[in-house]
Amino acid sequence: MVLNIIDDICIKVAEKVTPSKEERDKIERLTKEIIFKLVNEASKENIDAEIRVDGSIAKDTWLQGEADIDVFMRVPPTLTRGDLEVKCLNIAKKAFEGYKIVERYAEHPYLETWIEETRVNIVPCFKVERGKWLSATDRTPFHTDFMKEKLNDVLKREVRILKKFMKGTGLYGAEIKIGGFSGFLCEILTLYYGSFKNVLEAASNWRKKQVIDVAGWFLGRKEEAYDLFDENLIVVDPVDKSRNAAASVFESKFWEFVSASRMFLKKPSLKFFYPPSQKILSEKEVSEKLSKANLDLLFLVFGEVDAVVDVLWGQLYKTENALKNFLKANDFKVFRSASWSDEKEVNVILFELERKNISSPKKHMGPPVEKHKESEDFLVKHLYAEDTVAGPWIERERWFVEKKRRWSDAEKLLSFYLSNNGGRSIGVASKIAEKLKKNGFQILSWIEMQKLYNNKKEFAQFISRFIDGRPIWLE
Amino acid sequence: MVLNIIDDICIKVAEKVTPSKEERDKIERLTKEIIFKLVNEASKENIDAEIRVDGSIAKDTWLQGEADIDVFMRVPPTLTRGDLEVKCLNIAKKAFEGYKIVERYAEHPYLETWIEETRVNIVPCFKVERGKWLSATDRTPFHTDFMKEKLNDVLKREVRILKKFMKGTGLYGAEIKIGGFSGFLCEILTLYYGSFKNVLEAASNWRKKQVIDVAGWFLGRKEEAYDLFDENLIVVDPVDKSRNAAASVFESKFWEFVSASRMFLKKPSLKFFYPPSQKILSEKEVSEKLSKANLDLLFLVFGEVDAVVDVLWGQLYKTENALKNFLKANDFKVFRSASWSDEKEVNVILFELERKNISSPKKHMGPPVEKHKESEDFLVKHLYAEDTVAGPWIERERWFVEKKRRWSDAEKLLSFYLSNNGGRSIGVASKIAEKLKKNGFQILSWIEMQKLYNNKKEFAQFISRFIDGRPIWLE
Repeated sequence: MVLNIIDDICIKVAEKVTPSKEERDKIERLTKEIIFKLVNEASKENIDAEIRVDGSIAKDTWLQGEADIDVFMRVPPTLTRGDLEVKCLNIAKKAFEGYKIVERYAEHPYLETWIEETRVNIVPCFKVERGKWLSATDRTPFHTDFMKEKLNDVLKREVRILKKFMKGTGLYGAEIKIGGFSGFLCEILTLYYGSFKNVLEAASNWRKKQVIDVAGWFLGRKEEAYDLFDENLIVVDPVDKSRNAAASVFESKFWEFVSASRMFLKKPSLKFFYPPSQKILSEKEVSEKLSKANLDLLFLVFGEVDAVVDVLWGQLYKTENALKNFLKANDFKVFRSASWSDEKEVNVILFELERKNISSPKKHMGPPVEKHKESEDFLVKHLYAEDTVAGPWIERERWFVEKKRRWSDAEKLLSFYLSNNGGRSIGVASKIAEKLKKNGFQILSWIEMQKLYNNKKEFAQFISRFIDGRPIWLE
Repeated sequence: MVLNIIDDICIKVAEKVTPSKEERDKIERLTKEIIFKLVNEASKENIDAEIRVDGSIAKDTWLQGEADIDVFMRVPPTLTRGDLEVKCLNIAKKAFEGYKIVERYAEHPYLETWIEETRVNIVPCFKVERGKWLSATDRTPFHTDFMKEKLNDVLKREVRILKKFMKGTGLYGAEIKIGGFSGFLCEILTLYYGSFKNVLEAASNWRKKQVIDVAGWFLGRKEEAYDLFDENLIVVDPVDKSRNAAASVFESKFWEFVSASRMFLKKPSLKFFYPPSQKILSEKEVSEKLSKANLDLLFLVFGEVDAVVDVLWGQLYKTENALKNFLKANDFKVFRSASWSDEKEVNVILFELERKNISSPKKHMGPPVEKHKESEDFLVKHLYAEDTVAGPWIERERWFVEKKRRWSDAEKLLSFYLSNNGGRSIGVASKIAEKLKKNGFQILSWIEMQKLYNNKKEFAQFISRFIDGRPIWLE
């Protein structure tokens, strides 16, 4: 019964995500134009570049209406890295003069442009032998070739369904912001397990240190993979046995996929592919939920950070984590935290605290009485100290004392340390610390955030989701 | 320099604690009268009882003005325990007809009476061979004989100084209420180390599993003592190698003596023997200190418990400890607790809480996602539960959820469980549970305790000391 439902759902999804004849024609036309322009410009500059389409367009695994055209410029490894970055980008810039061009940066720079509402990425790389990588993107053409050889039409359909499932459950995308599953990863999983349904069935039983080795690099020597890779999900890159293609999947996303797979198999639904859009709570609803739960939200807000998107998110997550640990180390109970950014002018790091104020004292454990010197030092330090509230007294074999806290207000604590060198000493990431130091920051309560809540729909969605605190596929 | 100060102090203390000629004469006269009466009455009843004085009077180690006359009635071991309890007490009752007589109970019953403002204890026991104990008090005459043989006048003086030091620092008394050092223990320590100052010098270096074996039972076989006794202070009874004469010393009191010894040797002062009387804070001062510290006090108050004093205190401490653990298990932070009793009509158990109310939710950890069945159960339980505040969500490899607490108010929590069978299920001691069940109880805040505070000076002293939270010798 359930199987038929799943098949029905797959049919419906496949129908929607398979590109139409018109879209294919358009993409083909666009691709040819782009290649022509780049080849032309490269020959003018006398650069021996192989211009080729890679990514989901090349492999025919893109989702209807969501085509990105990835064009690679493969230059001889005799060029320097500097040549690669400067010359190739110049060729691309000239080829697309008149179009809006954004310079982007992953492991190395690339260009993004938009042609007929389609995003085009132009990525330079070295044309190397397999394994002799000079830059991270040198692998991509090998990935493309590997997949083109393996994927037939049936598998392509399954890849598309899996990709859509990942999108619907919020698990799609290798970028740092998401920490989810890349398109390539979806292809490998489909190839390895044979179908969308098989992937989900396998995933619902995945364990820690799950190894997926589609090219059989570690056949019969799985232990070696464990030595090489630290992650819980190990998907050995079929063109590079020393790379985990799933290295950028966050641990939580790995387990969210496992759990979403189980849920879908148990109760299949189109909602996993087409989730309801996040309901935005009214300001009043948020306030009520917070006061009912009796929790405090604390927002660290600051402006534009001078970093490309991936670096920005890396810095946000690093800072979020450091500040959470810092608050915990100061006895504030942090239940959850999250980061939000419009990737332009506003960045927000959010902490959910049991209480923003803990004005009660701290019961502080001293040394065992047996330790003469330590006990004496403890007494000297605390007996007549102004911040001693009660004690010292002996409990069982140790000294104890009740101390007033230095920091009873989380807001003041953060303000103080963030004002000092942008919070570098408490783990704020470098570019964010720079920003805080230069342009300052705000530490706000929910009430003070309501203006942003009203002005930025995405922020309101983010907060509404945070308040629920569960993955969208669990609704 | 310090040595001379100590010697000076000892001279002053010894002068004050050595009984005067008048007191000695009075005690001697009283003792003779008491023995005469008892011998006379025993012969009337045809009981072959050896009537003798034991304790500090017999050993000449009592403190001036604080004489208790301990008279032992040693009967043949051919009598039954019942005979011992009934016949001996009847003899004593007849001998002191007309005097106020209180029946008391330690390990077995004894009588307390007051003659010329002097407390007299009449204790029946069996006249057994050493080691063939039939009741706990059978050892006492052996203790007396042992000490009488060993103590000379110099040592008696040192014993008296040590006893006074114990009294002044709140460490004197083997009764459960105190859990401190008995007079006999003070004698053993003095005998073992040779002088008051030597005892303190040794004590200031005492370690865990300190063995004091004045009779040399375990000479060269200290490890055997470790196997036999669990306590940190092991003072092998010189008349019974299987008994730790310090078994009833609380661990905290052991270490308090260690610490007080160090303090005295470092800064000798008469204050250790004659501490200032506890200053009673005004109600307003208490209120201010509490509000400044931002801590809540919670008082469990109930009436007379049907138990002799030692049993009462045992029950109070047991209940205090159980309720503290129960509060902690329900996420209330209990910094300190204490018990107070007038040993008649009012009993109080007191908890110092970070907060009486914790209305914030609880972050509840679920199973690892890897565990399929457990995860499913967790989701079924929490996903749509009314008391789920946020989540469930996945953090690293586990499920988490925010739950509303069942018990956010410590007062209500205690009330509920204490109302159910007197709190037996949460560890309230039997006789107290009986009392709570029969006559009820009150759970009160500081404000509600102010009437008792004004009416009972000792309670006010107790609270004032509790607020300071340090041993009196640390002031």
